[in-house]
Amino acid sequence: MSKNDFLALTQLEDSFASLPGIGRKSAGRLAYHVLKMPDEKAELFAKAILEAKKNIHYCEKCCNFTDKKICNICEDKMRDVSTVCVVEDPRDVGAIERTGEYSGKYHVLHGSISPLNGVGPDDIHIKELVTRVPKENIKEVIIATNPTVEGEATAMYISKLLKPLGIKITRLAYGIPVGASLEYADEVTLSRAIQGRSEI
Amino acid sequence: MSKNDFLALTQLEDSFASLPGIGRKSAGRLAYHVLKMPDEKAELFAKAILEAKKNIHYCEKCCNFTDKKICNICEDKMRDVSTVCVVEDPRDVGAIERTGEYSGKYHVLHGSISPLNGVGPDDIHIKELVTRVPKENIKEVIIATNPTVEGEATAMYISKLLKPLGIKITRLAYGIPVGASLEYADEVTLSRAIQGRSEI
Repeated sequence: MSKNDFLALTQLEDSFASLPGIGRKSAGRLAYHVLKMPDEKAELFAKAILEAKKNIHYCEKCCNFTDKKICNICEDKMRDVSTVCVVEDPRDVGAIERTGEYSGKYHVLHGSISPLNGVGPDDIHIKELVTRVPKENIKEVIIATNPTVEGEATAMYISKLLKPLGIKITRLAYGIPVGASLEYADEVTLSRAIQGRSEI
Repeated sequence: MSKNDFLALTQLEDSFASLPGIGRKSAGRLAYHVLKMPDEKAELFAKAILEAKKNIHYCEKCCNFTDKKICNICEDKMRDVSTVCVVEDPRDVGAIERTGEYSGKYHVLHGSISPLNGVGPDDIHIKELVTRVPKENIKEVIIATNPTVEGEATAMYISKLLKPLGIKITRLAYGIPVGASLEYADEVTLSRAIQGRSEI
């Protein structure tokens, strides 16, 4: 069966292939799997896509995904309103929440500054953060962008923007991951771990 | 953001996670990617699923997927009508077609006999093959099921069913793959290659 045998299958394959981490061969396999699904399951899948797109949007405060006007975390009266943790991605919120270590609010940038990929400061939600800090009387901004070149650049950019407001700006600690072996740590991580050493 | 924060996202994640080779973590990543898609692209994706399910069904002759009553290969008057190649999966048809070596018809079983997974002979399209052989006056059946335990069992089962019809029944040759190194070939493959040696 050649690729152009029927349009409907090709279009489904194209849709799968446009997803991250799915190549043409996997896309073909997934499309065939959909063809073999019971009708109701395929309808549920199609509906799930449309419903998710329709109901889920950015929280007006923190830009995280939510199906309400304001997300659950921003609504939560028990949380510390004076601290904001800035992350690149909504999934990072989940990762930090799972530690149980943090009880402040979040701000989701939805990306990082990456000139090589054509992403400038105005393409991610930095402006909303800068408006939020004085308005919500925030005392500390924890920048938890990824420890990559883009994440670092974004952290530097944000800290420069917020410095004049006279608030505390912190960055997550660098160091060797718990359970890892020193032998396999890369030089940059290890030298950061030495710089950031603390008394015991 | 916990898993149960909003139903629409969870349902989309569940749909992705039900696809083969996609775990919970990948499903989450794909669902977030859909949320970030432009609306039109997500609608196209949902539509592609529904259209593919609606328009694509089994060919009445060979059980391959098609959007017509009879598929292109079965309709093709130039092909050898006296030979049928039996495969497990529609993608196997594509693989054999790409060799350019075969010009007969196909029969797609949509699976293989696998008692451990609860798949018996009646769950795959063997019955249609047995009806087809005398009706279309087929002279040779090439069994091209996979060289796995299930594929072998299916080949044995089909050949026993068709033997009384007095037609030629063949199986794809086993041997070392072209370009591979003998050193890395497994014992079973190598002993089959020795058994199947031919004069040069």
